[in-house]
Amino acid sequence: MKKLGDARSFDGVQSVYEHDSDACRCAMRFAVYAPPRERATGEALLWLSGLTCTHENFIMKAGAQRVASELGLTLLVPDTSPRGDNIPDAPDGAYDLGLGAGFYVDATEEPWSRNYRMQTYIEKEFLPLAIDRLGVDPSRVGISGHSMGGHGALTMALRNPDIFRSVSALAPIVAPSEVPWGEKAFAAYLGSDRAHWRRYDATALVADGARFSPHVDAVLIDQGAADEFLESQLRPERFASACETAGIKMQLRLRPGYDHSYYFVATFISDHLRWHASRL
Amino acid sequence: MKKLGDARSFDGVQSVYEHDSDACRCAMRFAVYAPPRERATGEALLWLSGLTCTHENFIMKAGAQRVASELGLTLLVPDTSPRGDNIPDAPDGAYDLGLGAGFYVDATEEPWSRNYRMQTYIEKEFLPLAIDRLGVDPSRVGISGHSMGGHGALTMALRNPDIFRSVSALAPIVAPSEVPWGEKAFAAYLGSDRAHWRRYDATALVADGARFSPHVDAVLIDQGAADEFLESQLRPERFASACETAGIKMQLRLRPGYDHSYYFVATFISDHLRWHASRL
Repeated sequence: MKKLGDARSFDGVQSVYEHDSDACRCAMRFAVYAPPRERATGEALLWLSGLTCTHENFIMKAGAQRVASELGLTLLVPDTSPRGDNIPDAPDGAYDLGLGAGFYVDATEEPWSRNYRMQTYIEKEFLPLAIDRLGVDPSRVGISGHSMGGHGALTMALRNPDIFRSVSALAPIVAPSEVPWGEKAFAAYLGSDRAHWRRYDATALVADGARFSPHVDAVLIDQGAADEFLESQLRPERFASACETAGIKMQLRLRPGYDHSYYFVATFISDHLRWHASRL
Repeated sequence: MKKLGDARSFDGVQSVYEHDSDACRCAMRFAVYAPPRERATGEALLWLSGLTCTHENFIMKAGAQRVASELGLTLLVPDTSPRGDNIPDAPDGAYDLGLGAGFYVDATEEPWSRNYRMQTYIEKEFLPLAIDRLGVDPSRVGISGHSMGGHGALTMALRNPDIFRSVSALAPIVAPSEVPWGEKAFAAYLGSDRAHWRRYDATALVADGARFSPHVDAVLIDQGAADEFLESQLRPERFASACETAGIKMQLRLRPGYDHSYYFVATFISDHLRWHASRL
């Protein structure tokens, strides 16, 4: 684990690291915000980013460090896919498959299965590393994300109720099996048997009986009402309906006028950080 | 003036516009943050960005919209140079000359003099447009900027005491005639006669008798103590010394551990916005 750079930010330190990933068989970069030492609580939020993002978008655009500093919260920000010259990418360079579009799954299909193992990378490699090396208290980790990363946050939290004590998402893809982004990526990464897709689909996971940690009193979701992907790709009502049936509490806040961009994320990120800190 | 896009941000609107500039003889883009209508005061802050920046860096990275929304302040963010295929650039693609490096001067030398007229563009074209079309109160305009943009803010405020009622800067170049960035750019844009450089040098302007608006009770400058350009390019003590001789009050705050990046700007921008709003 090699530090590539750091910068003071709101009295804490914003760093970028690189390490060799066994899961992805390549060097992976990630960003960490460490709050000022005197305020650090050991609490951490794992943030999963959306399509096209690297480890940098969130730390540069969301303005999360201000509130993380105030709350003493560590921010853990991995990349969204393996990277490098030898890593397969979408043949047409599409933004929604391959580089920047790992969808937080372990691919089983060629040519993806060798490197696109983001589930294992995040759960078994990145998070243990953060706990081991970055002062994160393993019993006080929350998870959140934006768009494809909201999908990642919801599904990881449902599959790992022993790990994630608080859950939220901004404009998440909640039912990837049923929308074009997810259908394209899952068919490529996981093959045509849709039964294999269900463990990576938050709405299907809840229907199949998966539950969040008992510490999760409710899931917070913010969604822009003017989001250009709301009807075609996001469909939060599908997850809301599954949660209602399952007795999972959810706060779905529809935000008039807001789109899918980081201007939306930046506007509401402080609510999410406070939500997590009050539960961790 | 054509709107290229907008996004809701902290209940206001972050927009990008394009217009044909007479001064620069090309299309110029700029960004505007309009606070929520019910809080808009007509007060505006003109923000000048640093080397390599476009109109986008500040609006994406500084997190300024949050406080601008709270204060009802409009943010006006022009580009840092003319742009386009027909605009001359540094022959070696250097980051500190040509595109992204206009230095807020009116160039007199070839090949720059046709387009690199950022002083006239900002003072005579962009600001009047903002006043005319964006609801800005001409008697309540402040100016600030980062690095090369801090240089722009200080020099414009000193040359236009009738326009700018409040002044601040983050890590500004305060004596461009005496440091490598400024010497290179001024020699190229303005020629070898250093007498012509003085009107674009804040320290020289003060020495030559220029003064801020009588409304400017003090100039606020934040400077990272770990800024990699502090000793070679910035030298705030030179401006401090000129101000002391001239009886101009200055708050120079040296910030331990902070570098030259937008993480530094983002940490302290809210102080600057509040400084301006309380004086406009």
